[in-house]
Amino acid sequence: MENSKEHTKVKYLVYVLRIGHRPQRDKRITTHVALVARAFGAHGFILGDTYDNHVIESIIKVLSTWGGYMLIEQGVNSKKYVLKWRERGGEVIHLTMYGIHVDDVIDKIRKSPRDKLIIVGAEKVPPFYYQNADYNVAIGNQPHSEVSALAIFLDKLYEGRELHFLFPKSKIKIVPQKKGKKVVTVGE
Amino acid sequence: MENSKEHTKVKYLVYVLRIGHRPQRDKRITTHVALVARAFGAHGFILGDTYDNHVIESIIKVLSTWGGYMLIEQGVNSKKYVLKWRERGGEVIHLTMYGIHVDDVIDKIRKSPRDKLIIVGAEKVPPFYYQNADYNVAIGNQPHSEVSALAIFLDKLYEGRELHFLFPKSKIKIVPQKKGKKVVTVGE
Repeated sequence: MENSKEHTKVKYLVYVLRIGHRPQRDKRITTHVALVARAFGAHGFILGDTYDNHVIESIIKVLSTWGGYMLIEQGVNSKKYVLKWRERGGEVIHLTMYGIHVDDVIDKIRKSPRDKLIIVGAEKVPPFYYQNADYNVAIGNQPHSEVSALAIFLDKLYEGRELHFLFPKSKIKIVPQKKGKKVVTVGE
Repeated sequence: MENSKEHTKVKYLVYVLRIGHRPQRDKRITTHVALVARAFGAHGFILGDTYDNHVIESIIKVLSTWGGYMLIEQGVNSKKYVLKWRERGGEVIHLTMYGIHVDDVIDKIRKSPRDKLIIVGAEKVPPFYYQNADYNVAIGNQPHSEVSALAIFLDKLYEGRELHFLFPKSKIKIVPQKKGKKVVTVGE
């Protein structure tokens, strides 16, 4: 787990493990999950138990254009990954609408110095993940989306600072506008 | 614009207008946008310029099971809807990565008593929306997802209270668990 991300400057790593991905049906949702992972300050995105180059190429393309460092993997054995993460001293956070309300656990998670593996499931998550997570966390107990759940979790973990992170090695950058679009090329 | 939602108790209505939806390609993303609209306290979800019963049925099914009141429409003329919203005194907020950072405008938007129409685009939003929005708002200036953008915007608008809203007329309810799932039927 050696890796660093200059823009976050946190004391732990945050990886996102996407499980239950079905390549055809989920490719856009999982791509959005990966983009949220990057934009909201995760240091790794892992696609578990399957391969989907569509997703992986999308996130790598965004990293190459918009910058940032991120470990990207696919086809890993998710259950083994979770067990290994814990063996190495990291903590595992499973996002699920059935879990404990994020507001009741986020301070404890934020303060803990342990690396964080965030599990984002599709439909029907096997009991293994509920049992082996240190925290089953609900972003409210209403149905919405794994994309929004991950974004809100990371926003609360970083207390909103992630929306101001700088992404090193970006080729282009947006200059915020009241109306219209302004994109500049980053000269190096 | 008469409508009410007991659980929000805010002084203005919040509607979400989804534009640029392509029925086959976007059905799951737009369904997630609609679910976020509901779960994060919007009072209306409008699918502009097209029809997609897959999306509409999904959100109506969730409303019927999980409760809450929400105006749902599809096939409306989005441009006319925006102009009419403004004529009636509402304000229009277009979520776009090219806009002003949410942290720079959210307090002003929250304090204004005007009804809020939040425009959520897919790829390639026509200049009309940039020009006719009162605010073009960026949830950070990095690419991520319209699903996460809407969730973060509403979370900041309601200052996190939306994750505790009660949804009237729900048939089932989750009892948060450390491990596993507990769902109870709401007796009436």
